[in-house]
Amino acid sequence: MTTVGTVTLVGAGPGDPDLLTVRALRALERADVVLYDALVDPRLLALCPRAQRFSVGKRRGAHSMAQETISALLVRAARRGKRVVRLKCGDPFVLGRGGEEALALEAAGVPVEVVPGVTSAVAGPASAGIPVTHRGLASGFLVLSAVPEEACIRVLSTLPPDAVTVVLLMATSGRASIVARLLGAGWPGSHPAALVLGAHGPRAWTRTCTLAELGAVRIPEDRADLPGMVVLGRTVAIATSIRRALRGPGLAREATEPRPALAANARTGATP
Amino acid sequence: MTTVGTVTLVGAGPGDPDLLTVRALRALERADVVLYDALVDPRLLALCPRAQRFSVGKRRGAHSMAQETISALLVRAARRGKRVVRLKCGDPFVLGRGGEEALALEAAGVPVEVVPGVTSAVAGPASAGIPVTHRGLASGFLVLSAVPEEACIRVLSTLPPDAVTVVLLMATSGRASIVARLLGAGWPGSHPAALVLGAHGPRAWTRTCTLAELGAVRIPEDRADLPGMVVLGRTVAIATSIRRALRGPGLAREATEPRPALAANARTGATP
Repeated sequence: MTTVGTVTLVGAGPGDPDLLTVRALRALERADVVLYDALVDPRLLALCPRAQRFSVGKRRGAHSMAQETISALLVRAARRGKRVVRLKCGDPFVLGRGGEEALALEAAGVPVEVVPGVTSAVAGPASAGIPVTHRGLASGFLVLSAVPEEACIRVLSTLPPDAVTVVLLMATSGRASIVARLLGAGWPGSHPAALVLGAHGPRAWTRTCTLAELGAVRIPEDRADLPGMVVLGRTVAIATSIRRALRGPGLAREATEPRPALAANARTGATP
Repeated sequence: MTTVGTVTLVGAGPGDPDLLTVRALRALERADVVLYDALVDPRLLALCPRAQRFSVGKRRGAHSMAQETISALLVRAARRGKRVVRLKCGDPFVLGRGGEEALALEAAGVPVEVVPGVTSAVAGPASAGIPVTHRGLASGFLVLSAVPEEACIRVLSTLPPDAVTVVLLMATSGRASIVARLLGAGWPGSHPAALVLGAHGPRAWTRTCTLAELGAVRIPEDRADLPGMVVLGRTVAIATSIRRALRGPGLAREATEPRPALAANARTGATP
C-alpha cells in the first residue's frame, strides 16, 4: 500500500525569486515533482534542481493544456506518493485556477496545501509607485480580469469611477475597447490611468496618462511580449511623486524618467 | 557630511514568519532600525535582533501615534544614515498608509524601497478555503476597509452582489450594521458569507453562513481579540469542500470541523 502524497499549490509571486515566500522556497526545495505555468520566471526552476519539472504550458489567455488534464496529472503524481508542487504566477487563488485544482484534488482524496503568494494585482501597481489604497483617495481596490470583456464591463459600468482603485489584469490587448466603453458609460476622460508592463522584472515599464489617452498608448516593441495591467483611479495621480523616491530592483518607470541608483550605503552594505 | 540612509517599507504578510518574502527577511536581517506596527507578529522581531526596534503602536482602527510623527521618525533615522525598515502587516500599500509615508520621505529627499507582502485580503480567505476568484463564480474581487462604514456602503450598494468576491477588512465589530444596510439595498439574505478571524495564526477561526445570518454570528470569547474580515460572494459556497482537502499551518476552520493531520510523508519528510 502506498501513502498518498500531497499537492502544494504555490504562489510564485510576480517573478523575482526574492519575492517568493520562505514557505514557497522550502516547498520547491523539497518537491519531487513540479508542474509550472509557462509564465513562471525560469529563475524559479533553478530552486528545485532535484525535482522532475513539467511545463503545463499555461499562459494567461492561451491554455495549451486543458485544466482537466493538469488536475489529472496532479492527482496521478500524488497517488504515486510524490510531494507535488503546482507553481503558479502571483497567488494561486487570484485568476490562477487554484480553486478548480483544489476541488479536483478534494474529489480524488488528495491532501492539498496552499502557499499564498505576493499578487501582481497589488505588487504590480506598487512597482510603478501606485498604492492601491491611500487615505482620502481610495479606501479599497477592485481586481478584475479584463478577459472576458463583457464580465469586466458589467462590473465597472456600475461602479462610481472615484470609488476605489481598479486593477485590470490581462488588459494590454483589450484596453482600447474597454476604455471606449467606460467613456461611453460616463467615466470622465480625465480619470487617472496607468499601463504597467512586466512589473518586478528586468524590463518593467509604465506609462501614466488619462483614461482618454490610455487606448492609444504605444507599447515599445521590445516590451510587447510582457504581461500587462491597467490601473485606474485617483491613487495613480500620486505615482509620479512616489516614483521619484523609489529605489530597488524591478521598478516600472516611464521611458523619460531618470533611473536613480540606490543610496550608497544600501548598495555597498557599509554600516554608517 | 553623512550619507542619507534608506527607508524600506516592508510587507510582513499575514503574520507567520514563513510567509515573509526572501527580500523582506533580508531587509530585516540588515536593518539598523525597525519601526513596527503593534499588530505585527512578535516572531518577526526575532529576525532582526541587531536592530533598534520601536513599536509605533498602530493598530487597525486605533492609532496611538500620529501618522505625521511616524513619518518624521522615519526621516530622522534615515538622515542619521541608518538602514530603516518600516514593518507593516500584510502589504504596505493595502490599508497600510505606505503611500503617505512614501510621499513624506520623497518630500524629505529620502530614498524608499517597497517590499510587497502577501496581503491578508487574499491569503485570509484562502486560509478558510475561499478562492477570491473562481471560473464561473467570480472573475475578480473587491477589497474594502469596513471603516468608515459610509464609504464602504457607498461602494457596495452600487455593486451587483454576484459580480465579484467582496473582502471587507476590519469588519468584525461593524458587520451587523453593514449587513443590515446591504439587505436594505437589496442584497439577498441567502448570499454566501464568511467571517474569518486571525487567519494564518495559531487561533485562526472561520464561520461560513449567509448574509442574513452574518450579523448574529457569535465570536468565541477566546477569539474576540483577533483581527477579522468578512467575505461575501459565490466563491464562499465552495469553501467547505476545499477545506476538506486543506492541510497545513494557520488554516481557519469552523468549530465543528475535523482538523486532519498532514499526510504522513509530508509530516515526516520521508521520501516515498
